[in-house]
Amino acid sequence: MKRYFFFLFVIMALTMSGQGYFEPPVNSPEIAKDGAVTFKIKAADADTVRLIIDSRVDTLMKRTGNDTWSITLHDLEPDLYMYYFIVDGMKMIDNNNAHTLRDVKSVMNTFVLDPKGDCPVAVHNVPHGEVRAVWYDSPTLGMKRRMMIYLPPGYEESHQKYPVFYLLHGSGGDETVWLEQGRAAQILDNLIAEGKAVPMIVVMPNGNVDEQAATNMSAEGNVQPTFIHKKWMEGSFEASFNDIMNWVDNNYRTRPAKRSRAIAGLSMGGYHSLYISANQPEDFAYVGLFSAAINRMDQGKSKIYDDLETKLVTQFKQRPRLYWIGIGKDDFLYKDNTAFRELLDKKRLRYTYHESGAGHEWANWRDYLIIFTPQLFK
Amino acid sequence: MKRYFFFLFVIMALTMSGQGYFEPPVNSPEIAKDGAVTFKIKAADADTVRLIIDSRVDTLMKRTGNDTWSITLHDLEPDLYMYYFIVDGMKMIDNNNAHTLRDVKSVMNTFVLDPKGDCPVAVHNVPHGEVRAVWYDSPTLGMKRRMMIYLPPGYEESHQKYPVFYLLHGSGGDETVWLEQGRAAQILDNLIAEGKAVPMIVVMPNGNVDEQAATNMSAEGNVQPTFIHKKWMEGSFEASFNDIMNWVDNNYRTRPAKRSRAIAGLSMGGYHSLYISANQPEDFAYVGLFSAAINRMDQGKSKIYDDLETKLVTQFKQRPRLYWIGIGKDDFLYKDNTAFRELLDKKRLRYTYHESGAGHEWANWRDYLIIFTPQLFK
Repeated sequence: MKRYFFFLFVIMALTMSGQGYFEPPVNSPEIAKDGAVTFKIKAADADTVRLIIDSRVDTLMKRTGNDTWSITLHDLEPDLYMYYFIVDGMKMIDNNNAHTLRDVKSVMNTFVLDPKGDCPVAVHNVPHGEVRAVWYDSPTLGMKRRMMIYLPPGYEESHQKYPVFYLLHGSGGDETVWLEQGRAAQILDNLIAEGKAVPMIVVMPNGNVDEQAATNMSAEGNVQPTFIHKKWMEGSFEASFNDIMNWVDNNYRTRPAKRSRAIAGLSMGGYHSLYISANQPEDFAYVGLFSAAINRMDQGKSKIYDDLETKLVTQFKQRPRLYWIGIGKDDFLYKDNTAFRELLDKKRLRYTYHESGAGHEWANWRDYLIIFTPQLFK
Repeated sequence: MKRYFFFLFVIMALTMSGQGYFEPPVNSPEIAKDGAVTFKIKAADADTVRLIIDSRVDTLMKRTGNDTWSITLHDLEPDLYMYYFIVDGMKMIDNNNAHTLRDVKSVMNTFVLDPKGDCPVAVHNVPHGEVRAVWYDSPTLGMKRRMMIYLPPGYEESHQKYPVFYLLHGSGGDETVWLEQGRAAQILDNLIAEGKAVPMIVVMPNGNVDEQAATNMSAEGNVQPTFIHKKWMEGSFEASFNDIMNWVDNNYRTRPAKRSRAIAGLSMGGYHSLYISANQPEDFAYVGLFSAAINRMDQGKSKIYDDLETKLVTQFKQRPRLYWIGIGKDDFLYKDNTAFRELLDKKRLRYTYHESGAGHEWANWRDYLIIFTPQLFK
C-alpha cells in the first residue's frame, strides 16, 4: 500500500514538474508476433495524420477512435526502422515511443523489427563487444578529436592481436552514426557469434575536419549538425588519417600490417576510403565503397585527389584482397559509380560489385556492412 | 558549380526519401552572447503554443510572424536544459534542434547554456576521459549486464591505480542516464582539469535487475523504459553489487580498498547506496545520498533491509570519511530524508547535509555531483 502511494507520488511529482507525463499513453509501435506493426497517435483535432518510415513508407493513418489515429503494416522486413508522424502538416515524433535516433538534423523514432529473433541488426543474447568513446590527438589537424572504437568480445581477456576495420561515415554524419543508425556493434556481435566474421577492432572516426566531435560532444557549444562543413572533401581528412592509424596501433593490440587492415565508408566516407586507400597503397588489403560519392569534383584541390588513375594502378598492382563496390539502383550516385567502374574495367582493375535495390539510405548501408564484413581478414 | 549540384542532389534525395527536411528551418534555440535564449517554432494554424523547460519554465509563446511563434528568456542560469513545446495541447519537440535526451519515457530537446565558458556541465577544451560501454557477468543475477565506465584522462598512458566511484541512477533511469542528463563525463573532466577532483574511475551500472541493459540495448527487443520494474527495490540489486565490484577490480587498475571507494546515487540509487554501504561496512569510505528514496517501505522483503539501525551503527563505528545527504526543499522525499537524518542524529552518527532549492530533478543531481565529487579520495 505504502509502495503504491510512493508510486503515485513519483508520477505526481513528475507530472507537476512538467516532464511530459500528462499524456495518457497508448502502445506505439505495437509489434505482433507475426511481425505486424501498429502505429498509434492521439490527435483529437487533426484533419490528416501521415506516417513516414525511412524512404520505405509514406501513408495516411486512419481515425480509429475518438481521438486516436492508427495504422497496421504487415509487410515490413526485419530491420531497424526510423519513423515520424505528420499531423496537419507538422512533423511530430511518436510521444509513446521513447526511442529516437537522429539523422543529420532530423530526430525520428526508431524500433527494431525482429519477430523471428534472427535479424542481424538486433541485440541478441550473444557475447557483446565493448564500445569506447575515445579522444585522440591529431597533430596534422592540430586538435584533439573524438572517435568510437568497437572491441570484439574477449578482447580484454585475451592477449591476441586483432585486425582493424576503419569504418567511415557520410556527409551529415559523425563518429556516432555507424553505431546508431548503422548498428555496427550489433552487426559485428552477431556476425562474430555466428562465426561469419573474425573478431576484429572497428574504428569509427569523425570525418568532419572542422569539428572535434559530434556537435553535442564538442567544446563549440550550441551547434547544430549540418550536411556541408567548412572543410568538405578537400583533402584534410585523408591527409590526417595516419594520425588515427598511429593512435590505434599505439593504443590497442592490433596487427599493424596491410593484410590486417580494412577501410570502408558510406557516401562521403566511401570517397574518403577511395582516396585514403589509393594514396596509401601499402596500408589496406580490403576496401569498401558503400554508395560512395565518387564524383571527382575536387580534383585539383589537393594532391590527395591528383593522378587518381595512376594511383589506382599502383594500388591494384599490389593486389588488394577485396575492392568492394556497393550501390543501390535508385541511388543519385549510381551514375558516378558506374563511371568509376568503367574506369576500373578499362584499366582491368578487379573489384567486386554488389548492386542492391533502393537508394542512398541506411537500410542499404547496414546490408553492405553485413555483406562486406564476413569477407575480411580470412 | 558541380559541387553545388551535388549539394542539391543530396538535399533532393533526402527530401524525397522523406527524411524530414521539408521544413524551412528556423534557428532554435538561438543563444545570444549574454545568455539570452530564443525559442522558435513554425505553427501557422496553432491557437496556443507553450514552452516547457524542465520544472523551471512553463510559459506561453507569442506569435511573432505569420507562421512563427517565439519567446526569449533572459534569466536562465548556465546549465543543461531539457524542453519541449505544447502546440494546441499536443507535446512536440523542437524540429529545429537535433539534440534530444530521454527522461524515462519522454523525449525532449536539450541545450547547454554556457555564455561565459565556465559552466561545469559543458564540454570544454580540457583533457577528456574515456567512456566505455561494457558487459559484465553477474553470477548472482545469472545474466550478462551492461554498464558504463568513465576512465579519467591519462588512464591509458599511466600505470597508476585509481580510486573508484560507483554512481547509481534512479527509478526510470538506466546505465546511460548519468552520462546523458547527468553529464557525469563532462563534470568529471572539468573538475579534474581544474584540480578540484582527483582522477578517478566512475562506474555507472544498471540498477534495474529485471533488465540486462537500457531498453534499446537489451536483447528483449521492443521494450519501453518504465518507472516501476518487476523487481524493484527488493534487495536483488544490492545483493548482486559484489559482482560489479569484482568485475571492476579485475578489469581496471583500481585501488581495491575502502578508502579508495565511493558510492552515491539519486533517488532509488540513493536508496541502493544507503543499503549497499550499510550491508558492506568494510567497502565504502564515501557515501552520497542524492534526493534518496529513504522510505523504508521494503523492510522485511529482504535481509538487505533488515536491522538497518544496527547496520548503520556498525558502519559509522568504522568512520566513513564522508556520509553526504543532499535534498531539495521541494522534493517529495524531503520528509523521508528529514526522518532519516533524525535517526542518524538520535544515534549520534555524523553526516554532512546539503539542502538545496527545488525538488526531485536533474538540475539538483548535477549540482550534487559537482559538490560531492571534489570531497572524494583526499
